[in-house]
Amino acid sequence: MLPFDILEYQKRIHETKRRMERKGIEVLLITDPANMNYLTGYDAWSFYVHQMVAIVIDEPQPLWLGRHQDANGARAKTWIYDENVIAYPDYYVHSGIHHPMDFIGEIINQIGHGKRKIGVEMDNYYFSAKAFDRLKRALPNATFLDGDLIVNDVRLIKSDQEIDYMNIAAQIADQAMYQGVESIRAGVRECDVAANIYYHVVSGTKENGGDYPSIVPLLPSGKNTGIPHLTWTDRHFKEGDSVIVELAGCYKRYHVPLARTVSIGGPSANLENLAPIVVEGVNEVLQAAKPGLTCGELEEVWRKSIGRYGIEKEARLGYSVGLGYPPDWGEHTASIRKGDPTVLQPNMTFHLIPGLWFDNYGIEISETFKITKQGSETFTKYPRELAIKHPFIIHQHEGEIS
Amino acid sequence: MLPFDILEYQKRIHETKRRMERKGIEVLLITDPANMNYLTGYDAWSFYVHQMVAIVIDEPQPLWLGRHQDANGARAKTWIYDENVIAYPDYYVHSGIHHPMDFIGEIINQIGHGKRKIGVEMDNYYFSAKAFDRLKRALPNATFLDGDLIVNDVRLIKSDQEIDYMNIAAQIADQAMYQGVESIRAGVRECDVAANIYYHVVSGTKENGGDYPSIVPLLPSGKNTGIPHLTWTDRHFKEGDSVIVELAGCYKRYHVPLARTVSIGGPSANLENLAPIVVEGVNEVLQAAKPGLTCGELEEVWRKSIGRYGIEKEARLGYSVGLGYPPDWGEHTASIRKGDPTVLQPNMTFHLIPGLWFDNYGIEISETFKITKQGSETFTKYPRELAIKHPFIIHQHEGEIS
Repeated sequence: MLPFDILEYQKRIHETKRRMERKGIEVLLITDPANMNYLTGYDAWSFYVHQMVAIVIDEPQPLWLGRHQDANGARAKTWIYDENVIAYPDYYVHSGIHHPMDFIGEIINQIGHGKRKIGVEMDNYYFSAKAFDRLKRALPNATFLDGDLIVNDVRLIKSDQEIDYMNIAAQIADQAMYQGVESIRAGVRECDVAANIYYHVVSGTKENGGDYPSIVPLLPSGKNTGIPHLTWTDRHFKEGDSVIVELAGCYKRYHVPLARTVSIGGPSANLENLAPIVVEGVNEVLQAAKPGLTCGELEEVWRKSIGRYGIEKEARLGYSVGLGYPPDWGEHTASIRKGDPTVLQPNMTFHLIPGLWFDNYGIEISETFKITKQGSETFTKYPRELAIKHPFIIHQHEGEIS
Repeated sequence: MLPFDILEYQKRIHETKRRMERKGIEVLLITDPANMNYLTGYDAWSFYVHQMVAIVIDEPQPLWLGRHQDANGARAKTWIYDENVIAYPDYYVHSGIHHPMDFIGEIINQIGHGKRKIGVEMDNYYFSAKAFDRLKRALPNATFLDGDLIVNDVRLIKSDQEIDYMNIAAQIADQAMYQGVESIRAGVRECDVAANIYYHVVSGTKENGGDYPSIVPLLPSGKNTGIPHLTWTDRHFKEGDSVIVELAGCYKRYHVPLARTVSIGGPSANLENLAPIVVEGVNEVLQAAKPGLTCGELEEVWRKSIGRYGIEKEARLGYSVGLGYPPDWGEHTASIRKGDPTVLQPNMTFHLIPGLWFDNYGIEISETFKITKQGSETFTKYPRELAIKHPFIIHQHEGEIS
């Protein structure tokens, strides 16, 4: 039932505790759903209410604390003992009076940890300013420390089983990109292409069903390709449009993102010039990537490469990727950017997405890759180039989409 | 380009300022993406980095503050003047050193609001404990007040245009439920049904393309129907399984959720007994709902109805619904539950979802409805009953899914 062997979970707990010790944290309260999943196997769309996993430095079992109607899920989907699953009644949910952290604080007191050094994930989406305030109020004798990204740091180097899951996610990403690009043509609506991509991402392959990616397929077209985070509309593509497709395959919550730029008909001079420069830069970064190099040094490779063409890019190039929940599939640890000191090691995984955005157009050609013993290897096989949809080719699936 | 008339946005700003005044708030920092959209029209998947809209009590224009690469979107997609769009450089993103709130605090200081009474959305997903800490550090002379749910309260009563968008979302929800239930049968994988639902939700209708719902389609089957928030797997449905389908149609970020329970083959005695009780309860609540009643009184109607059959339900029955972003389509204001004092008024909209979950099974039959001048009206038309898939009926689309 669990996606990983119990020994793998225990190793993760062990690594987490080592880092807690180093930071002087005795109890770590984990509210990031990816970190909760990573340590316990818990996987449900329940993170829209307050919930957490608590790791106590001198106790072997984690605690799950959440909403009453989600406790069955915690009992069924994790390796946590049933008695360590503790649930708050429903009147704590979205109430102006009661807050789940009042309850959780009281439990932590009752089980004897109210005076300890407690780490909290300070910058996580699912640990709001009010959650922290109410927790401090409920635990007046505790010392609070910033425990942000402790588990994310453990996640940086993947196990072989995690890499296997990412390989499946890559098959799904490749398939969804083929299907998505296939369905892009003049007259088709953005939403119908997004629907087609979603179908293939979620259905997955015959052997392995897909999971929902943490970010929806992004699909800006025309002038909107200069705005990277717009979602689709029901606009019809036109001859001469360019379209950026950014998607991810996802398997057991492990992501492999992939972005391509598509030109409907012959590309604009801008795109035609930029595409080989971006591809060359990506190639050089992938060739340079190997254990021992830092993320910052990897960025230099890119900077020199595009610098030869007089191009500069301010935004970061990429980030560590893997297990994730909405709203992000990035791990918020290592970034491929100027000065990042992270030293590359085998089984680290990154999404290299050197997007270039201008006022009226943009380009994205990305790769997700892992560091190997001697170099790097991409997860997907989709051609690394500007995709051009020639209008005179008769498409096999013509008429299926509209 | 904007989904609402500029006058509607100005009315919303006016209502927000009235509530700010009542709470003594001079500057309201809005981090909820739904509230940002509601007041300005801003709509992008950029909420995975820190961003906000600021409303200053004595200034007519809002400010948008966010990441550099998203600023083009704010300029293109909102009615905010270009000079009120202020962006932070990319080295603030997911950095261990710099935090976007350092930058935002400095800007608020520079434009002369550093000593004012500042409201923040204390319990929003996108206002983390660290965001608040860094903001307080950057604005040492400000007085911070809890501005949570101020804009959500304005959102409680919908305009006619908002109701129109929800009517379109309802068409999409109906269509996705028909297609989803149609594709459920023994031998089909959960993920393929989820993919099919997603296709129809995102594609929408011929007239109106769909948007992504804030929650993925939930699709527990078999024993997992006792666990409401599990997402799909690649398990194959079996004869005799029951399946809960919870989905939403979404149009321009307005949601109409809909849940049904499906039995593959003849239903279990438990489901067969429960379904008419739930339907009767839903009917009675919908018949009772009218302006002047409170949400708490509505819950009493339900409690008495199921009480006749000896059933009790601890969890809340429903919640205000409409504009939303992941991870939730609920508005976090009024709940249909014991004691909720919200007085029903025309154009309030609710998702009534009286789910009942037991150890090994569960049932959900829900309706999204609006309060009218004299009573209530549901948005969707899907039959309000347990859906039974008889294996001997030849389905029109047989063979399309696998």
